[in-house]
Amino acid sequence: MVAMSIQPVPPYEPPYVMAVFTGVRTCDDTGYAETSTRMNEIVRANPGFLGYESAGTPGGLGITVAYFRDHDSLTAWRDDPEHQAAMKQGRTHWYESYSLHVATVERSHGFVRDNG
Amino acid sequence: MVAMSIQPVPPYEPPYVMAVFTGVRTCDDTGYAETSTRMNEIVRANPGFLGYESAGTPGGLGITVAYFRDHDSLTAWRDDPEHQAAMKQGRTHWYESYSLHVATVERSHGFVRDNG
Repeated sequence: MVAMSIQPVPPYEPPYVMAVFTGVRTCDDTGYAETSTRMNEIVRANPGFLGYESAGTPGGLGITVAYFRDHDSLTAWRDDPEHQAAMKQGRTHWYESYSLHVATVERSHGFVRDNG
Repeated sequence: MVAMSIQPVPPYEPPYVMAVFTGVRTCDDTGYAETSTRMNEIVRANPGFLGYESAGTPGGLGITVAYFRDHDSLTAWRDDPEHQAAMKQGRTHWYESYSLHVATVERSHGFVRDNG
């Protein structure tokens, strides 16, 4: 029995948009958790938001993938004033280094095991 | 002092190609480690391979992002016979569910803290 079934974000019908953010954190996490919660609320309110996934390595690299219906939806998220302020905090305090890759998904597929 | 400096894969000059694979594993890991090592060797031998990142959640979701110079490079990786056999093993044994999103990166940027 699991409390929550974990599933990958499903493959949507292309084209859609994907932003991959990979970063290594500093030791400074002042305000990080609160901001993270607030960013989560903001992105979920975006009508073109399809989902996101986030994971980390024991070595400290974090990978977050966010999926959007189109580039306009992603631009709205990028330009959100609270998000802009959070990005600035990220560069000032939270990240040692990061990369952002913004892409259009052209092909996708999924697999779900048939346990029936 | 750290033995190895962890860095995100850097933002290359667009366009380039990115494949995001997200999956939830089964309990069956027969042959997984050996195959994983071999797949690593094969993808690194691909002249258009730019790098990859892999991370997991405590809940069991794995995210792997692989970056390629162009779609031809990714197609060569996809069509590699050993990789094809490994994908089949993945569906037979290793994965409960997965999604694959193949995309062209149109915009990228990076940040590295100036500790100087």
